[in-house]
Formats: sequence, structure tokens, C-alpha cells
Amino acid sequence: MTSDVKVIAFDADDTLWINEPYFQDAENEFAALFEHYMPHHSIKQELFQTEIKNLDLYGYGVKGFMLSCIETASRITEDRIDFSVVNQIIAIGQRLLGRPIILLDQVEETLKALYGTYKLIVATKGDLLDQERKLANSGLEHYFHHVEIMSRKSHDDYRKLIRHLDCEPKEFMMIGNSLKSDVIPVVELGGVGVHIPYVTTWAHERVETEFVHDNFYAVKELTDILDALPLIS
Amino acid sequence: MTSDVKVIAFDADDTLWINEPYFQDAENEFAALFEHYMPHHSIKQELFQTEIKNLDLYGYGVKGFMLSCIETASRITEDRIDFSVVNQIIAIGQRLLGRPIILLDQVEETLKALYGTYKLIVATKGDLLDQERKLANSGLEHYFHHVEIMSRKSHDDYRKLIRHLDCEPKEFMMIGNSLKSDVIPVVELGGVGVHIPYVTTWAHERVETEFVHDNFYAVKELTDILDALPLIS
Repeated sequence: MTSDVKVIAFDADDTLWINEPYFQDAENEFAALFEHYMPHHSIKQELFQTEIKNLDLYGYGVKGFMLSCIETASRITEDRIDFSVVNQIIAIGQRLLGRPIILLDQVEETLKALYGTYKLIVATKGDLLDQERKLANSGLEHYFHHVEIMSRKSHDDYRKLIRHLDCEPKEFMMIGNSLKSDVIPVVELGGVGVHIPYVTTWAHERVETEFVHDNFYAVKELTDILDALPLIS
Repeated sequence: MTSDVKVIAFDADDTLWINEPYFQDAENEFAALFEHYMPHHSIKQELFQTEIKNLDLYGYGVKGFMLSCIETASRITEDRIDFSVVNQIIAIGQRLLGRPIILLDQVEETLKALYGTYKLIVATKGDLLDQERKLANSGLEHYFHHVEIMSRKSHDDYRKLIRHLDCEPKEFMMIGNSLKSDVIPVVELGGVGVHIPYVTTWAHERVETEFVHDNFYAVKELTDILDALPLIS
């Protein structure tokens, strides 16, 4: 049921703008540095394991990614590389922090249509400064009442966010590309979840189960959600 | 004038709990690794320069500190060290992330006295996950209505925070150990600033000028502020 919705929260990375392909480019650049030591795909697997191990300590975002790259380089080469390689890894990460913001299809027209009828917010994981910079560079900042950078997207985190927004769960809709982070916890709390798939998803965000619920909408294109939402024209 | 105050924001690091001494320990451990290359104080100066250079890119917090340490190690040794040294640096940073939370004097009694009369929030810089973890471990979380992790503490950032809190600048009081970050921008916006000095301040946060303003209070002990604030008993 979408008729109670008052606040619509958008995930940012790979929902509003391109992100995962940039990380994949960075992973490939990292792996290319060590192909004498291990096959490309094994290096990426080692990096993924390091990232998951460090996730509770570092959280999401580029800085933790850089630190996990450096740690992985040490492990897979058994330190048989020159120390200067850290600078190549740091350069990969710093380039990642500077990649341009490319909006995904229909983002701007969807926000424009919803703006004025709904309170729109951004609810995203990642490094605080990096996400703020991306939003500032996106040209979308003026549509949003509030930006919430979240360290995790668990039930508890959404419960806090909804309380902080002074709304009821049924008045809260979350739109994002990750079933696991953006949709399932919100729907289970009594909110409305909308899944808009992106071409590629980070392995850590993938879920294999099929999700079915009255308060869950799977859309193919972002503007599809406008059909389900009453608008004040 | 404090009679209009409705929201009281507390800085966290070195205002609610010990922080800077932990960073100084980590800097000393880092410098101790490279004393064959350079005097201890020069290494710390080199590290500080790297941190300042990277601040706009990484923001505040331990992860950026770790990356700046690794970059500094490369520069000051001209890469004449074993790659395994990165693991010693990463270990220094990870220990920093795990240091215990030690509350500063009078913090709990001050919060207890203000709770119920004022809306209390935390407004702090740093890594999102790290600050959330510190707050959770402090045992103080239940006093606070809201926690704002800020990437910067400029006029604009406080303007956004005050708007987001739905209050007037004169209704907003900020208490912290940094004149530069916690007091001056708030007072200049029309809010009330309270400076509670800590034994040591990071070089980047130091200001040399003497600050005088009607809406500025310098206190020696945190409970001193209770004399200036009407309380519902």
C-alpha cells in the first residue's frame, strides 16, 4: 500500500548514480598490479575476502577499500614487492574518489515529479565526505530535504531513521538497487520497499531468495514507481 | 544569552571522551618505526603535512589517518623499507579503532542534569562507523535525541544542521573543546558557543586569537555551564 507514504528515501550508489562499475574498474586496476603472483580473478577474490573481514571495523566506502587493497597486496605477494607499490594503490583509490557523477536513467524526472508531494531524502552507506561530495556534484541536492549517511542498513538503523524522521513505518518508502540493504529490512519493519535493479551488484549485496510481500514493488524503470504513487500536480 | 536555548549539541572527541591522546600515542608508535630515517619530531611533522594535504579528500577520522601514515612512510623512507611494514601501520590504526572509551570529568552528571529540559544531540566529525561505535560504547547514547556526524564544521554545515533541527540559531547551543570548529562558527551564525578546553588540541584545530562575544562562554569545568542554563527540576 503506497497511499500512506509521506517520506521517500532513495539509496544513492547505483540507484541515483553509477558506482559499482567504478569500484570494479578500481579492482581490475589493483589486480593488474599483481598478475605475476596470481590469476586476476583470484586476486579479486582475495581482495573481497579482506574487505569482508574488515567491514565491521572500517565500514563501507573508498578509504576502507584502499586499506583492504594494501593489506591484500601484502598477503598475496608475501611482501615481495617494493614499498612504492602502496602509492600505486593509493592512486587507484584517489582516482576512485574523483570519478564523475553520472546519473542513472530517469532519476531527475522521477525526483522532479515527486518533489513537492513527498519529503524526499537520501539514505546511503559509504564514507561521509565522499557521499556528500557526490551528492553536491550530482546537481540533485535541492530535491532532498535531508541526507542520511548510514554505517549499516539493518532493521535497527532503519528503525532509528524512521523515528528520527518523525513518521510511521507505513509512511516510509525506500527505493534502491539492493534487495538486502534497501528493501527487505524496510518491508519487514512495516515500510514500503521498492527494488530497482542495476546491471551489476557487489557480491556482498546479492541475495538469492525470491522476495514477495504486499509492501514490496519491483520496478524495471525508476519512473514506473510514479504509477503507484498519488501525486499533487 | 542562554534563555532561548532549546537544543544543546555536544562535540564528542575530547569533549565527551578522550581522543587526542590516543591519536598522539598512535603517532608516536608510527614515528618509532622510522627513527633510523629521521628524528621523531620530524616524522610527526611529515605525517601532519600529509594529513592536511589529504584532509579535503579523506575527511577526518582513523581511516584517513592510516592512509596518510602509509603515504608518509613511503615518502620519508624513499621506499627503502620492507612492504610488510604496511601491516605494522595498519595494526597501529586498528588498535586506535579499538581503544576504550573513557568519559571526561562531569560528562555524565552534566548530561543527566540537562536531559529532559533540553534536546541533546551529538555533533562530531570523524569516521561514521567509528563515531557510532564510540557512542554506543560510551553508555551515553540514551541521553541523545540525535547524532550528527559531520564531515566538516563550517558555517554552512552548522546552518544545515540548525535548519534540519527545525530551530532558530539563537535556540542552538554548541559545547566543545575546539574554538575553531565548535564555537566560532556557531556564535557567528547567532547561536551560543561554549568552549570547554581539553589538555591537548590537535595542531589543525588550534587558534591563536582571543575570542570575545556576548554569546560565547568559556568554562573551566563542564558542570559550570549548568549555572547559565535554566533547568526544569
